[in-house]
Amino acid sequence: MSFSDIDREMMALALQLAERGRYSTSPNPRVGCVIAQHDKVIARGWHIRAGDGHAEVNALAQIASAEDCTIYVTLEPCSHLGRTPPCADKLVAANVARVVVAVEDSNPLVAGQGIARLRDAGIQVDVGLMAAAAAELNKGFMRRINGGLPWLRLKSASSLDGRTAMASGESQWITGAAARQDVQRLRAQSCVIVSGVDTILHDNAQFNVRPESFAPEQVNEFWRQPLRVIVDSTLRTPVNAKLFDEGGEVIIATVVQDPERYAPLSAAGAIILSLEDDGNGRVSLPALMRYLADLGCNEVLLEAGPTLTGSALRAGLVDEWFVYMAPSLMGSSARPLVDWPMTKMAGQQALEIVDIRAVGKDWRIHCRLPALLGGA
Amino acid sequence: MSFSDIDREMMALALQLAERGRYSTSPNPRVGCVIAQHDKVIARGWHIRAGDGHAEVNALAQIASAEDCTIYVTLEPCSHLGRTPPCADKLVAANVARVVVAVEDSNPLVAGQGIARLRDAGIQVDVGLMAAAAAELNKGFMRRINGGLPWLRLKSASSLDGRTAMASGESQWITGAAARQDVQRLRAQSCVIVSGVDTILHDNAQFNVRPESFAPEQVNEFWRQPLRVIVDSTLRTPVNAKLFDEGGEVIIATVVQDPERYAPLSAAGAIILSLEDDGNGRVSLPALMRYLADLGCNEVLLEAGPTLTGSALRAGLVDEWFVYMAPSLMGSSARPLVDWPMTKMAGQQALEIVDIRAVGKDWRIHCRLPALLGGA
Repeated sequence: MSFSDIDREMMALALQLAERGRYSTSPNPRVGCVIAQHDKVIARGWHIRAGDGHAEVNALAQIASAEDCTIYVTLEPCSHLGRTPPCADKLVAANVARVVVAVEDSNPLVAGQGIARLRDAGIQVDVGLMAAAAAELNKGFMRRINGGLPWLRLKSASSLDGRTAMASGESQWITGAAARQDVQRLRAQSCVIVSGVDTILHDNAQFNVRPESFAPEQVNEFWRQPLRVIVDSTLRTPVNAKLFDEGGEVIIATVVQDPERYAPLSAAGAIILSLEDDGNGRVSLPALMRYLADLGCNEVLLEAGPTLTGSALRAGLVDEWFVYMAPSLMGSSARPLVDWPMTKMAGQQALEIVDIRAVGKDWRIHCRLPALLGGA
Repeated sequence: MSFSDIDREMMALALQLAERGRYSTSPNPRVGCVIAQHDKVIARGWHIRAGDGHAEVNALAQIASAEDCTIYVTLEPCSHLGRTPPCADKLVAANVARVVVAVEDSNPLVAGQGIARLRDAGIQVDVGLMAAAAAELNKGFMRRINGGLPWLRLKSASSLDGRTAMASGESQWITGAAARQDVQRLRAQSCVIVSGVDTILHDNAQFNVRPESFAPEQVNEFWRQPLRVIVDSTLRTPVNAKLFDEGGEVIIATVVQDPERYAPLSAAGAIILSLEDDGNGRVSLPALMRYLADLGCNEVLLEAGPTLTGSALRAGLVDEWFVYMAPSLMGSSARPLVDWPMTKMAGQQALEIVDIRAVGKDWRIHCRLPALLGGA
């Protein structure tokens, strides 16, 4: 399949439109759509939030007729009846001439059937234009739909010598304001932020998105505060934690089975989630991740100390990692980046560094975890 | 002072010529010279090694007359009689019209007197063109001449989590072939490579420059193997260490005062240097650095483990640091980047990151130490 420059311009615009849903479409994917007639854009659409119109429908709604037009859409049009009618049927009914799709929808309910339905109706369908960028935008959605797990992103802040807190636990602030601002973007695009009770006890962090961190053009009005989950195996979260101060849901994940012990935290506003233990008296992280995927969470951000970060890595649950590295030394008695003892060079955990860039005075190291990560 | 585009082209060429002496001029500075007549290059010169002609003299030797020419030289022409006669006098005698100097020579024996002598003779002298690049090339020379200490460059290899060896000491190889190749450049431009006896005991490293690491155009025929210094407070270096296998001098720096204990290492080819101790029974690094400066060493490369690296940092001796960071985790039981316990965030050691770049599969983090480093 070869695409024209016009095709590329149109799909680039559709991707920009999809991007506008970055902070609001979950659990649905981010999708953008452009309708072109004689190489001119006549309608634009994007998906805003679950329950509202899909990108194609929103674009079609802007024009009287899409007959003989070309539709550019960043994800395969759906073929199943969800909360809204199938988009593929709408495109057939609109008598469009051609549909250009960036990437197939790997949702088993769609998975090529949307494209098949269009082709059966005699519409020309060209697939694969800017597929990598389109897939990147919905990697969390695809991971959840296909793997039953969310896309798990770690965030850490460390010194050049790989330390995340002094031995006393003191860690504020390793990185500067620009790095913390950058973390706001990671939070906002995540369905859930997961942390550990030790971080709550030590820093009394809120883990919320501060809307003032975003320029008006960066967010739409339907952006949502991520769900917050505190891994608290033995229920040590204080009922007066700042976490409960503002709106937004808080789940406390625990292995405590005694509902009587839930009452004070429930009264403080938390939802108590009792999960299986990992064999060491701690919440099973795989069980938590499966639970979050079942809840419809596409992307999870883990912002925690070395213990929880190490557990997630060792369990092979981590897809990518943002390490904000400060230009400083915190010294050899400070806490490690991850609690994960290893004995042999051959047992190292390999990483793929995607990029390293300056963020204010700090440096952001973006890593992926090789697919075959299997624990220590 | 404003310079023309022709001036800039000529000085850029002179800097390139100076660069050709990178691996051979020490203890002298790297200097390049271009002679231009009517905006055309008529002669080029550069300093090759101590005892041979200075850049200006080598350029003048190529032409019958430099009368009314402009001379571009990267460092102020010397005014004192060293191993060769003063260059300033030669330029006066040659009746040149104008001399453009990148940077003054801060050597107290010169320090503006070369320029003064030229001006006294009625020659137009313009100073400061590409001064930063010229000073960078000779930062070691200038540090030694003005401060009585060499420019000390650290090299470390670590994982993303800031670890330099497993608890067992196993460390080969943290970084890949491209990083090791890059280290060859650091070694070759250093007058001395300093390491610790533990590194010799564990890795049996040679710390030499492998000529095959360089393309012919990168080195001139007079490149020299750096002197090697092993910090070995209690004389544990094995007499069969690979260090002694090939030519090139080896100094063992110790606090042992008993010459009888020197004999086996002397027989192996080492020069034993007895130095004052640091109060803890170990070689005083400041004393070692002053010794090396007195020996005429401009640039020293310290390639050692966390103990010696930490001592150099804590003593405030380090000017810059190259950390080759592998995309891997070595885990929380592995050895630290530096042995330097700190207790408070306020006591962190700040660094300035000059740049971070990919070197093969690894990343090179180039730091400077802020000038006021005063130890913990």
